[in-house]
Order: sequence, then C-alpha cells, then structure tokens
Amino acid sequence: MTRPRAAIVVTGSELVRGERSDLNGPFYAREALALGLQPARLIIVGDDAMELEDALREGMGADVCLVSGGLGPTHDDRTVELVARVAGRPLVVDEALEERIEHVSRTVAERLGRPYADFAAGVRKQATIPEGALVIGLAGTAPGLVVDTGSCVTVVLPGPPGELQRLWPGAVASAPLQRVLSSTERPGRRVLRFYGTSESAVARALAEAGGDGGGVEATICARDFEIHVDLIVEPGAETRADVLADAIAAPIASYLFARDERTVEEIVLERCRARGLTLAVAESCTGGLVAARLTSVPGSSDVFRGGIVAYGDDVKARQLGVAEDVLRACGAVSAEVAAAMAHGARERLHADLAVAVTGIAGPGGGSDEKPVGLVHFHAAGPGGDEALRFELPGDRAWIRARSAVAALHLVRRLLERG
Amino acid sequence: MTRPRAAIVVTGSELVRGERSDLNGPFYAREALALGLQPARLIIVGDDAMELEDALREGMGADVCLVSGGLGPTHDDRTVELVARVAGRPLVVDEALEERIEHVSRTVAERLGRPYADFAAGVRKQATIPEGALVIGLAGTAPGLVVDTGSCVTVVLPGPPGELQRLWPGAVASAPLQRVLSSTERPGRRVLRFYGTSESAVARALAEAGGDGGGVEATICARDFEIHVDLIVEPGAETRADVLADAIAAPIASYLFARDERTVEEIVLERCRARGLTLAVAESCTGGLVAARLTSVPGSSDVFRGGIVAYGDDVKARQLGVAEDVLRACGAVSAEVAAAMAHGARERLHADLAVAVTGIAGPGGGSDEKPVGLVHFHAAGPGGDEALRFELPGDRAWIRARSAVAALHLVRRLLERG
Repeated sequence: MTRPRAAIVVTGSELVRGERSDLNGPFYAREALALGLQPARLIIVGDDAMELEDALREGMGADVCLVSGGLGPTHDDRTVELVARVAGRPLVVDEALEERIEHVSRTVAERLGRPYADFAAGVRKQATIPEGALVIGLAGTAPGLVVDTGSCVTVVLPGPPGELQRLWPGAVASAPLQRVLSSTERPGRRVLRFYGTSESAVARALAEAGGDGGGVEATICARDFEIHVDLIVEPGAETRADVLADAIAAPIASYLFARDERTVEEIVLERCRARGLTLAVAESCTGGLVAARLTSVPGSSDVFRGGIVAYGDDVKARQLGVAEDVLRACGAVSAEVAAAMAHGARERLHADLAVAVTGIAGPGGGSDEKPVGLVHFHAAGPGGDEALRFELPGDRAWIRARSAVAALHLVRRLLERG
Repeated sequence: MTRPRAAIVVTGSELVRGERSDLNGPFYAREALALGLQPARLIIVGDDAMELEDALREGMGADVCLVSGGLGPTHDDRTVELVARVAGRPLVVDEALEERIEHVSRTVAERLGRPYADFAAGVRKQATIPEGALVIGLAGTAPGLVVDTGSCVTVVLPGPPGELQRLWPGAVASAPLQRVLSSTERPGRRVLRFYGTSESAVARALAEAGGDGGGVEATICARDFEIHVDLIVEPGAETRADVLADAIAAPIASYLFARDERTVEEIVLERCRARGLTLAVAESCTGGLVAARLTSVPGSSDVFRGGIVAYGDDVKARQLGVAEDVLRACGAVSAEVAAAMAHGARERLHADLAVAVTGIAGPGGGSDEKPVGLVHFHAAGPGGDEALRFELPGDRAWIRARSAVAALHLVRRLLERG
C-alpha cells in the first residue's frame, strides 16, 4: 500500500549546532509510522528565516508536515509566520486565542511583578495565526496549530518535548489529520531481540530466511549492545511476518531473549517477581549503572533490595566482605573478587540473587596483565552461579555501558537456567 | 563575516522511523561550527533512493556537505552512487581501493568459514566511487570519501558513530576541505553555566545586558536541568563577548557555577581533590544515578569511595545505620532519614563528605502527605551540612534525573561554603 508521506521539520539553533540532541523528530517519526504514515524525511534547521522557509516549503510538499519549535513570543520565533507564507494564507489575529494567551500572561506578569504592558506585544504576536488554522491547545503562551491546505496537513507544535507530546493527541484527533489517516491503515509490528550475536549474523539469518518484502519490511539495528529486529507489517501480511520472524530466529535461537519490547531489566525483574526472588547488585567499574537501570523500572522496589558501589578496595572488603587476602592475591579485578562481591551482596543485602561487576574502565589503571577493558562478572543465586570475563575495546563510557548490559544479561541467563 | 554554509545529510531507515537517535548529525554540526563553518541544515532520510537523492541535491547546494551512512556492500546502500549522480561524476572502480577492501574481506571470509566468492560482488561495489574522489580511509570494508565539485566539498563517512569519528580528521585534513576552511576563521566561544534559575530569567539578563549581535551570537539552552549560555564569537568581537558575558552573569551571579564546560560532577570531584577530601553517596530513589555520574569521570576513584543504593528500608537500617525508630516515626522519605543516610554513608564508607537522596519517584508510592515527586536531600561534610526538600513534577525518569543533578549541586554548594 502507498502510505501518505510525512515530513518532519524541527527548528532550534542549538539543535542545528549539535549542542543538544533533538527528541521531537524521533517522537514524530515513531508516531507517524504507528499511525500508518510513511516518515520520509526529518529536517533540522536553526532560526534563520530563509533556512526555515526552505525547509517548510520542502516539508509541506509531503501529505503531512509535522513541525516543532519557533513558537515563542519574540521576533526570532518565525515558524507560524513562515507556515502561513508557504501555505499561501494571510496572518490574522485570533481574538478568542488572544484572550486565552492574555490570561496566561497576566498571571505570569503578576508572579514576576512586572507590568502587563511588557507582555502585550508578545501576546498579540502569539495570537496571530494563518487564516483558517485550528488551535488545538496552549503550551504556556504558545498555541499548537493545524493548518490544512488541502494538499498538505501541517501540524505546528512547541519545541519543549513534554509540551509537544501533551498537545500531539489533539492534533491527531483534528478533522484534517483524521481525513488523511482514513486513507491508510496502521501497520502491524513484530520484534525480535537478540543478545550476544552480531548485526551481520542476524542479517545473514534474515537473508537465509528469504529476506523481507511481500508486505514485510525489516530493520536490523544494533542498539544498546543488543541486536533489535523490527518487522513493519502491511495489513494482510501478518502470516508471512510470523513465518519470517520464526525463520530468522531459528538459526540464532540461543541468542533470542525477547519477542516483545521489554528491556532486559524489565525481563529480569519480572522473572524474579514471578519466582518470588529478590535481587541485589555489587558494582565497581560500572559505578551504579546496573542499579540505575534496574531502579528505572516502576515497581522495581518489590524485587530490588539495593546495591553497593564499591570503588575503594577497603569498601569491597568492609561492605561486601571480600577477604583482604583474596584482594591482595588476585587483585580487585579478578574472577575471585567478582564472585566474592556477588556472594557478599547476597548475604549483606539479604537478597536471593546478586550480580557483581569489577573491571578496568580506563583510561588509567591498566597493565599488560590486566588491560583497560578487562571486566569480570559474577551472578549468584539459590540454584548456582554464572561467571563471565570480557576484554572490551572502547573508551571509559563505552566499557561501562557495555558492562552494565552484560551484567543484566548474565542475571537473565542465571534466571533462565532455573 | 559570512561563513561557508555546511549542510548535513544523514541516512538510515531506523533514524527516519525514530527507532534510534542520530548521533552523527550533532557530531558533524559541532565540528562544522568549531571549524568556522555555518551549520545550516541537517536532513535525515531513510534508504529510499529518491528521498536520499533529493536530500543530497539539497545538501550539496551548500559549500560543504557532510554525509553519513549508506556505505555498506548491499544494493540498499546507495549513498556513493547518488553522490556521484548529484556531483555529475561517473562511477569508476578504484583498483587500489578494491585490493584493500578485498584484503579485509578475505580475512572476514576466513573467520566465518565462507568462500571469498560470496563477498566479491560486495567488494567491487564498495570499491566503485565517483571519479576523482579522495579515499581518506576504510571502516571495515567501507571507504570514507571526499568529493570536490568546485562549488561543494562533500564528505561521505560510514554510519557507525565510532567509525565516522575515527575517519573525520582525515576528511578535515584533505586538500579540498582545507581550501574551504582557509576562507574562514574559527569562532571563539564563551560559556556560562547556571543552576537554580530559569531560562526566562537568563533570557531577561541577556536582554538587559543589551542582547547579542555585534559579532557575538548567544544561545540559551536548558540542558540537564541547568541553564547553559553559549556565546559564539566572531574574530575581533572578543572584548565585546567578555563584557557581555560579565553583564549577563551580574544580576544572576549567585546561580552561576561555571564559566567553562566542566560538568557539575567534574567540578565536585576537582574541588574535593584540591582539598584532599573523599566522597560517598547514599541513594534511594535515584537508585545509583548519582554514583554513576560521579564514576563516569576518569580518575574519580581517588576521590569517590563508593555508594550504597538503599532501596529496602532494612537496607537503609543495616547498611547505613539509619535508626529503625526514625524510619518508623518519620518514614523513609523524610529530612531525618536523608540526614541519617548521609551521616551513615560518611561513617560506613570512611568518606569526608557524603550526599544522600530519598524520595518518591512514582508512579506508585505517593500519598496526600507525601506525594510522588517529594524528594529529600542531605549533604554532610567536615564543615557542616546542607539539606534540601523538593516537590518535583514530572514522571519517574524525570524525577530521578532531576534529583541526581540536585544532589550533585548540593555537594557543590557545601564545598563552596568552605
């Protein structure tokens, strides 16, 4: 099926300078895809009027154009004016809108102890919109708008991601966007999540399964040290998608850990919860990253007991009970110390399972025998232990992030073992 | 000064679908800005040939076009072919390049136990480049290229960010890019970092200082719960920039914590190190985020002793020595428990300073008296204590991230106090 094309235009000087990563483009893209649109292009420009007008002209050549940013009260904020120009619509002051914005501004003026007169020009500016535009809500003093030219429906929302996401459902519900959406169907989706294998091995499995096509589009993506396969499924191709997913998974089944979008920390916590087990961590080089990932999950407190970040050797000894002679004989980065840390965390934090990480994240601290990137892992539970040793390439941030993921997957494996 | 315009074209299906955030666009943009180019536009497209060709045509209308992705061995990887078409150059097989790629591929074939014949077509494809293109290095089997049409210098690098960043210096050093760079000067830069004030208060300070202009361009950006002011300074405007920076800072000086790009965790660790102090943390709702930020800094191990992530109440009691009757009487989320956690961490981890966080990150666990978003902080050091109570809006991830930043700034404040 030919899907309506969606273009995304994001404006923000700090974005085009690379000072901040854009969150609105990916949000719009995911939403467009899920609604049955074809996200075709994402354009990021600064507040230069010519660049922005060019980008809008290009974006509004699509069936749907999703715009973020440039809606503020000052003269630098030109998005609405330029959307009107590209749409060939005059600008008009919407009086009902002006009243609503004035109300918000008076409250702000009062709080800041400034005269309302300071705000009046900005209020009028923000209430000036393309003739016939729908106002779908306010974010502070900035209105969200839907402009329908017949050939393109343009959605204009404010740049702060929370505000944009709050106003978005109103844009989706608007009559112009509903008209476009009625011509398309939402695609289905199948996902496969692998850990421990390579992107090219998964690509080979896809090719040997016959590849995508026939209403199923596959993306293979290395993400957060896992390999994520996403199948976008046209209506009618559901059976082919299921057969393809099974065929991809078959030769690399031992690496498959999920057929849904749960993260590894969610899977670990759910498996623990189902079996009534509690969990603790002991971290050296990951310095809290494993605990932070586990506690990012709402409701983790019924499974996760806590963690010890043991950076100093004496902290490993005192807080985790690692024997001083083991530390001396084997060194802090060793299989023996990883095991002692895991057992210590189980015991000290009264947890059924514990996982420990100790390694050299660099850039300093390496030696010939124990280079930067050497990391030992140990998971201990009521049914036994799992241990792992990695020599990882990469810089400090990469080694730490990679190690946190490895620790979580080690616990998952221990839980799968029974 | 009019700077050469740089456009950035990033290709990747998973990027245009919002499944992954693009890192290459912001990298290219920051580099372009620092080199004295004007980053004007960033375009993200999938692997659809028409979309990519359009984007390249637009991008190659700039003085410099920086391209990432689509360099692989398969027919979906069309970047090089389309750059040649837009540049009006025929495609030719570079035989020296083919030999280099063949060498890499034979090694891979051997390791995978596959016949080299499987790879030959891909090798030839990757060695086929626009006539006259400079090869600036290989990432695996993908060459990085510089294509000079006279009106535009196009740099084509592979999509994996590590590879792109590794090959980038070779592109900068190439004669065509050096020619463009010789017509421009690198801008200067001044930065101000505020914490505890709002974006609009900083915008007001900028306006009252006379605003930017006259060779100084200002961006104000709320980032990681701080307000970052960046001044981009044209050659000759250095004095004006220094005067402007001082004038912006003056009315909000109590919120200014840095005039350089160090993060708050770097500042905290450096101040501790300078005074010979060690540091520990005790975390409940932040669940390891404070420790993870501190340990992200290379060399933090000489200051940072470790941390206790005390999720369970009995962990707070046993590992941090919080008195059970205080926990019962005040509840785990209270100023009293935050103080006891900080003092416990100091004592148990033998640290000079400690900071503690305890709060309700939600979505569950709130009550009328102690709503979701209530967070208590306590920092304790040899010279005294600092305490703080927040009621934060937002979701779990936001409350946790915001609290981790607040904890780090609380330690900074304690250290500033002397």
